[in-house]
Amino acid sequence: MQSEAVRQKAAEQDRRTLTVYHIPVCPFSQRLEILLTLKGFHQVDFQVVDITRPRPEWLLEKTRGTTALPVLETEKGEIVKESMVILQYLEDRFPEPAVAQRDPYRHAVEGMMNAMEGDFGAWGYRYVMNQDPDEREAFRQGMLDRYARLNDFLLEHNPSGMYLFEDFGLAETVFTPFFMRFWFLEYYEGFDLPPEERYARVRKWRDACVAHPAAQQVTKEQIVKLYYDYAKGAGNGALLPERSRSSFALEPYWRSRPWPPKDKYAHHATDGELGLSG
Amino acid sequence: MQSEAVRQKAAEQDRRTLTVYHIPVCPFSQRLEILLTLKGFHQVDFQVVDITRPRPEWLLEKTRGTTALPVLETEKGEIVKESMVILQYLEDRFPEPAVAQRDPYRHAVEGMMNAMEGDFGAWGYRYVMNQDPDEREAFRQGMLDRYARLNDFLLEHNPSGMYLFEDFGLAETVFTPFFMRFWFLEYYEGFDLPPEERYARVRKWRDACVAHPAAQQVTKEQIVKLYYDYAKGAGNGALLPERSRSSFALEPYWRSRPWPPKDKYAHHATDGELGLSG
Repeated sequence: MQSEAVRQKAAEQDRRTLTVYHIPVCPFSQRLEILLTLKGFHQVDFQVVDITRPRPEWLLEKTRGTTALPVLETEKGEIVKESMVILQYLEDRFPEPAVAQRDPYRHAVEGMMNAMEGDFGAWGYRYVMNQDPDEREAFRQGMLDRYARLNDFLLEHNPSGMYLFEDFGLAETVFTPFFMRFWFLEYYEGFDLPPEERYARVRKWRDACVAHPAAQQVTKEQIVKLYYDYAKGAGNGALLPERSRSSFALEPYWRSRPWPPKDKYAHHATDGELGLSG
Repeated sequence: MQSEAVRQKAAEQDRRTLTVYHIPVCPFSQRLEILLTLKGFHQVDFQVVDITRPRPEWLLEKTRGTTALPVLETEKGEIVKESMVILQYLEDRFPEPAVAQRDPYRHAVEGMMNAMEGDFGAWGYRYVMNQDPDEREAFRQGMLDRYARLNDFLLEHNPSGMYLFEDFGLAETVFTPFFMRFWFLEYYEGFDLPPEERYARVRKWRDACVAHPAAQQVTKEQIVKLYYDYAKGAGNGALLPERSRSSFALEPYWRSRPWPPKDKYAHHATDGELGLSG
């Protein structure tokens, strides 16, 4: 009798659990992990999807054919897509402690900053994926201009502070995963913010963001190793010529692999060099 | 004494007024007008900015150099940009009657639909601005695919209804201005949704949206006349060769001008043909 009650309770609990289908190290998924960490909410079941294999049928059925992740499934089987929409959903469902601003104007300020995230992230990804050495300087300049825009925005709204407002909040949740992915620019492109006044405020912000305890889901080593194929122009788990395994493969585990060669323009690393043949 | 009190009251009233700087017939501005109409809120001062002239200095000072409109200024002089952010701000400030959904999942559903608006709108604008006859079919097909995506989404969430939910709400506020702008595709490209099942649900939605009493800020005649220059490849009030006035000019008033020629590919209408020389 007791075991039946326990089983029922577990099933009930199960039904009340949110599930997120995600790709490990995906920046859009890390946003959700950061938000949940800030809220101290741990009842979300994160299910890993292997980006290097075709999406399983059962998942495509849930998403009605779309392949973008993360996807959240509620305890009622409802599907929520798009990381910004999922963040809002989690904020609405679990309002305490608030991560987003509650005051309408402050909420609009973080909304304006978040409106820059798409272009900011897309540029960094195009930059790391670029294969034409003649385009490097234009990509570097475009990246700097985008950081400068964030710098201006922070100067306008919180010139002397650390974050956009008093604490690590929604804008930080949205941008930090990109700041961490952009370790691939540092490694493969030698990109960093020059020590100039034009970037001083955004540098302070970025450094505080990546150091925040709620945002430690990934490491620089992990990003650099997994994103090698992006640096060679192959995104989303696609396979490069003469390679049998993507750098995003779950096995061998990234920690056991060597750091990849930094030269993305002249050299094509083999499975062996990347520790992927084992 | 009484006149002093009146003056003070007026000044007080003034300070409590929101101002929107906008371009007449801009779809992003119409979103705000629709939302305010749905809320029955009329204390917003809409200030017209002439798109055919450089932005005035006082406005650039408010926006810190950005030229995109609409921009909202609060009674405290705070600036809010980006139509989606302004809609949220107005919803937060004036919550009754609600236009956005309040239930977290329903709010996420309208969020997912609104996440399609950027690509949907951008495609329609690129289509009308296309000058290469060989590209017409690809643009038409791309437009149809985007309508089909909306169709699927509506079928998933409200197969037999009219709107996304019971009433004209946030998603309708966001998409209706595009449905109305796309009258320019009907006129200059002969584009319409074919009478096929694939578009039946989105056609029903679109037709209900454009017919809604809260969305009657513009007319087809106005759109077709003002957007002639877009159909010839010149956006944002830019001047075409051998023309002295943009079709977006505030004078002569659009109503007094003739309907423009439909042929955008072979014919270049003069100021005179467009009723702009008067």
